[in-house]
Amino acid sequence: MIDPGTASGLRDLPPSATIPRERLLASFRATFARSGFVPIETPHIERTEVLTGKGAGSDEVLRQIFDVTNKGGEPGKLALRFDLTVPLARFIARHVDQLGVPFKRYAIGAVFRGERPAKGRFREFTQCDFDTVGTESAVADAEVLQVIHKALTGASVPPFTITINHRGILDGLMTHLGLHDRTPAVLRALDKLAKIGRDKVHAELTDTARGAGLTDDQAQTVLRFVTDGRGGAEVLKAIPEDVLTVEQARDGRDRLAQVLALAEAGGVPRDAIAIDLGLARGLDYYTGLVFETTINGWERYGSIASGGRYDNLASLFTTRRLPGVGGSIGLDRLLAVLQDAGTFTDSATTAPVLVAQFPGTDPVPLAAIAARLRAYGIGTELYPDPIALGKQLGYGSNRGHRLAVIVGPDEQAADVFNLRNLTTREEQKGLPLADLESRVAEALEALTPESATPASNHREG
Amino acid sequence: MIDPGTASGLRDLPPSATIPRERLLASFRATFARSGFVPIETPHIERTEVLTGKGAGSDEVLRQIFDVTNKGGEPGKLALRFDLTVPLARFIARHVDQLGVPFKRYAIGAVFRGERPAKGRFREFTQCDFDTVGTESAVADAEVLQVIHKALTGASVPPFTITINHRGILDGLMTHLGLHDRTPAVLRALDKLAKIGRDKVHAELTDTARGAGLTDDQAQTVLRFVTDGRGGAEVLKAIPEDVLTVEQARDGRDRLAQVLALAEAGGVPRDAIAIDLGLARGLDYYTGLVFETTINGWERYGSIASGGRYDNLASLFTTRRLPGVGGSIGLDRLLAVLQDAGTFTDSATTAPVLVAQFPGTDPVPLAAIAARLRAYGIGTELYPDPIALGKQLGYGSNRGHRLAVIVGPDEQAADVFNLRNLTTREEQKGLPLADLESRVAEALEALTPESATPASNHREG
Repeated sequence: MIDPGTASGLRDLPPSATIPRERLLASFRATFARSGFVPIETPHIERTEVLTGKGAGSDEVLRQIFDVTNKGGEPGKLALRFDLTVPLARFIARHVDQLGVPFKRYAIGAVFRGERPAKGRFREFTQCDFDTVGTESAVADAEVLQVIHKALTGASVPPFTITINHRGILDGLMTHLGLHDRTPAVLRALDKLAKIGRDKVHAELTDTARGAGLTDDQAQTVLRFVTDGRGGAEVLKAIPEDVLTVEQARDGRDRLAQVLALAEAGGVPRDAIAIDLGLARGLDYYTGLVFETTINGWERYGSIASGGRYDNLASLFTTRRLPGVGGSIGLDRLLAVLQDAGTFTDSATTAPVLVAQFPGTDPVPLAAIAARLRAYGIGTELYPDPIALGKQLGYGSNRGHRLAVIVGPDEQAADVFNLRNLTTREEQKGLPLADLESRVAEALEALTPESATPASNHREG
Repeated sequence: MIDPGTASGLRDLPPSATIPRERLLASFRATFARSGFVPIETPHIERTEVLTGKGAGSDEVLRQIFDVTNKGGEPGKLALRFDLTVPLARFIARHVDQLGVPFKRYAIGAVFRGERPAKGRFREFTQCDFDTVGTESAVADAEVLQVIHKALTGASVPPFTITINHRGILDGLMTHLGLHDRTPAVLRALDKLAKIGRDKVHAELTDTARGAGLTDDQAQTVLRFVTDGRGGAEVLKAIPEDVLTVEQARDGRDRLAQVLALAEAGGVPRDAIAIDLGLARGLDYYTGLVFETTINGWERYGSIASGGRYDNLASLFTTRRLPGVGGSIGLDRLLAVLQDAGTFTDSATTAPVLVAQFPGTDPVPLAAIAARLRAYGIGTELYPDPIALGKQLGYGSNRGHRLAVIVGPDEQAADVFNLRNLTTREEQKGLPLADLESRVAEALEALTPESATPASNHREG
């Protein structure tokens, strides 16, 4: 016998994990499509030079690349993608002349990193990315926030906050303080504020050896700016006038105000967005809007959707400058929060109804009953074997079916059916078979809405 | 600059290819879910011994395996999966005690084979598999046919025929003729009937060196049996009585009749299923029902959905016998037929409506207009930049948008909008903004239904 385990750091996802996954992905796809983001697919396997051509800074990711070789092939030429951004850059450089810009794409797919296996860390995981490439418009910035909001509410994610900032504002503050060259070190320190607290960040800001080397006054100014810079739209009005004398800061402030107005007009409620003038989200990539998203009360899980605006996507592959803005939803982390928040019912079926196969009953009319319910849009499973009824009902309630339709020879002769609630064990007897769909739908509606329609996968936000 | 091409044998899928793909997959997922098939996911990377443990017969596939190695890892230990059946077998052997049977799963994912690149052959392609494991029931057999039927009609695939057979019937004929030991060679020859014609198959059946070595009489009998054995349910009634003296043939005939009755009760129209007593679908794997599916008039493209019943799925990984039945939809081949049959409109957008950004107009109310249409379920793109209106409309009609909503400063002041048909260039002017959703929905309904709702992705079969 061969051991049926997965390789180290990889995992099987059983139905109880994939059913909520598919529900989230269906909401994401519907939201992307409705906003004009179109799907693209690129291979899981890329030429190694495409992945490693990024230059300095990505050493950690490069050490984690999986090499791919086919029999008789030359090693070192092919590798598995480690994100969906590099493939997007390659794709758009190759196809931009046919596709034109603005180009709005989404991509959902597996990426691979040979990280040291650890709890919650896997060597294969799913990314859900969407980007608008080829425009510098604030409309595109706001739309990314709208899509995050719609995708998450459409999937019944609990209340969340999208925290936004504009890189120009902090940059402007640093210029104003005459500390422009310290910006990277300051951002690195500020990024740790939530994790290590104000005192330790102050120490790092003033550390001359390994920190930013600010004076105590400068560090206090920066920390006050960041602490005061958290809240709603009023935060933008409270930015000190002397900071706004720097053009970069003024432009960033105006841009952020415009993005907020557009997002609100686009249906994002005011209280779903917060401003945090200390939010940096890394150093290199983003040049304008940055954002991250946390579930209210579950901030310690970190961001479940983040992104921002960049100046030039594909400089490795084309001389054409391609600015854009995009977001990425962390499916695995989001699922972990929802799991721990108890949002998901732990069901192993997409079908709320089980049609039992009463021993000694002709299965052909039962197949017709199942088909009628399915055609009505009700997820239905027909038990395949005429084993003892009690065993079938036990199977049904273990799997998470909610109702059982039971038709024995007597019911078959009388054109009626019995409907059993698998949780309460209550049973309605002798319901007319002619009313099958409406009676079952009624009984399902009387259950919680969450569990009544697990098969639909289609929710409106 | 790094060349932005894919590796040999791999491909990028642009929106015009992925939009119909996603539409098919949405119908498949909805159909699977509604019938109680639940999704599972297994890693793209498997331990090599899991993939190669299959034993003799799969040499060709084994030669095509891609090896995977991470930096510092030992080579030869990991590989990319080449199908979804071996991972299912490993998965179910590992988890069957927790999951229980019957277990109905579907899986949609990429598989990898290092085939010599050729037209229409790719080293990475998508499989859509579904199986019911742990039952020998005819109900499960029929359900597989029902799911194929629902999944394809739900995706607006043109009329198709599911051709079925039962392996016991041909086996029974061979036993009846005293030729049981020649069965493999006979099946191999019969499998080529459509391709090489009756005469060449006769030659192969009677060839004593490399063929089946039948007498002319025996070959004529087999060929007559197979030729007579094509049609509707009446074919089963016409099987010669002397063949039915063999138990295997009689059981196969009865089973097929039962599957037909169940499938029909389950909503599959009689004319969507044909019987072909010569259908074998390979030699090793299937032991009962076998089936394949062709689009009417496009039979030369081969089967787009096939499968059958097997006795034991996971004998490599567990001593527990797991019989089952399953099907696989060939997404790439199906798309190729639909493309060539002209079924798809070649659109590069999921949004039928483009909201133009009239130069000099405040974009905030335009964001609200786009949000209203999206909330109404109408796929809508807001052009991000206020460039010349003609350029925006040109972009829209190139992309496949059908209607443009145009609001200039005058319209904005009067609370009205203009609605332009991007194909006919007709424009309705001064429509009240209060009626936005209903007027746009009306105009979309007046277009062809196919193109009016590309964003919905939800179709009922």
